[in-house]
Amino acid sequence: MEPKPKRRASIGARRSPETEAAVKAAARELLAEKGYAGFSIEEVARRAGAGKPTIYRWWPNKAELFIAIYGVEKDAAIPVPDTGSLREDLLRYTRDLWRFWREDAAGRVFRGLIAEAQTSETALAALRFKFMPERLASPRRMFVRAAERGDIAADEIDDRLELWVGFNWLHVLTDRLSEEEPSLSRKINLLCR
Amino acid sequence: MEPKPKRRASIGARRSPETEAAVKAAARELLAEKGYAGFSIEEVARRAGAGKPTIYRWWPNKAELFIAIYGVEKDAAIPVPDTGSLREDLLRYTRDLWRFWREDAAGRVFRGLIAEAQTSETALAALRFKFMPERLASPRRMFVRAAERGDIAADEIDDRLELWVGFNWLHVLTDRLSEEEPSLSRKINLLCR
Repeated sequence: MEPKPKRRASIGARRSPETEAAVKAAARELLAEKGYAGFSIEEVARRAGAGKPTIYRWWPNKAELFIAIYGVEKDAAIPVPDTGSLREDLLRYTRDLWRFWREDAAGRVFRGLIAEAQTSETALAALRFKFMPERLASPRRMFVRAAERGDIAADEIDDRLELWVGFNWLHVLTDRLSEEEPSLSRKINLLCR
Repeated sequence: MEPKPKRRASIGARRSPETEAAVKAAARELLAEKGYAGFSIEEVARRAGAGKPTIYRWWPNKAELFIAIYGVEKDAAIPVPDTGSLREDLLRYTRDLWRFWREDAAGRVFRGLIAEAQTSETALAALRFKFMPERLASPRRMFVRAAERGDIAADEIDDRLELWVGFNWLHVLTDRLSEEEPSLSRKINLLCR
């Protein structure tokens, strides 16, 4: 058995990088082990040897802590392509996103957040007002560049982005993320019309 | 307290219409009260005064019993329009669908089925292989008629249908089903291009 980590002291509002790293590592480990439903600030605090109040000061609930971790992993796994074609950019990004959801524990955990948002107001608010705006900022750039090139209208950026998001959610929630999904490129073609 | 209903006799594989109606009424009541997570064949059997084996013979799991009830209510609440324009048909159908999800317990329960499908293989299989094909048959007719009129290509029917489904799921799962949702008609315009 690993030795219980030393309890790290809180230093008020200023974040200790060491504690932050320990909390994130513990959260990542717990998410991979237990999924979203088995994830709790209490257990993260225990594993990280950190105080619960410290964690709550940085992330007011487990949804926000998950979102912080998911964001770092997703951005590291999925570069935002810039090929000069929206269709090609979306194809590459979507394939990478689906692979990330398939292969990383993050996919299962993300599905768990959506599930929890159906009965928890806190999870719903985190999903809607934190996860979506933060996580859509990267893929949105593909649509913004397409508008700058004149390939799509500027006032269609967010509606097209959301149609693409809905398409991805439908596939992840019905567990259809195969590399060979035949409708993938056809649907992306339709989204680029 | 209401008197406990008389136990209805099973009559083998042939369905007794009286028992079927009692089971469906009990299931509808339980779903409205407890949502999908609190819904069980056991409790439906108790309330309907029916035997569990009888119910299981007709609906092999709670997902399929829910789907049977949801289907009847949805078809009754949402006529499939036939205005001669895919855009107009989708606008009407989508507004009716969102109203149904907002006002009927069915919306909350449907979200519960999607949530449960993220951790239960049985619920996922029911959602994917039973709910989706059965429930998409009605709205699919709008796309089929558009293809018959030559407004969309025939080989795009199912991809367009699924993009529309994903758009609806994204809105129901993030609880954005307002009558005045400004992006509704804009997104439908994009889906009809």
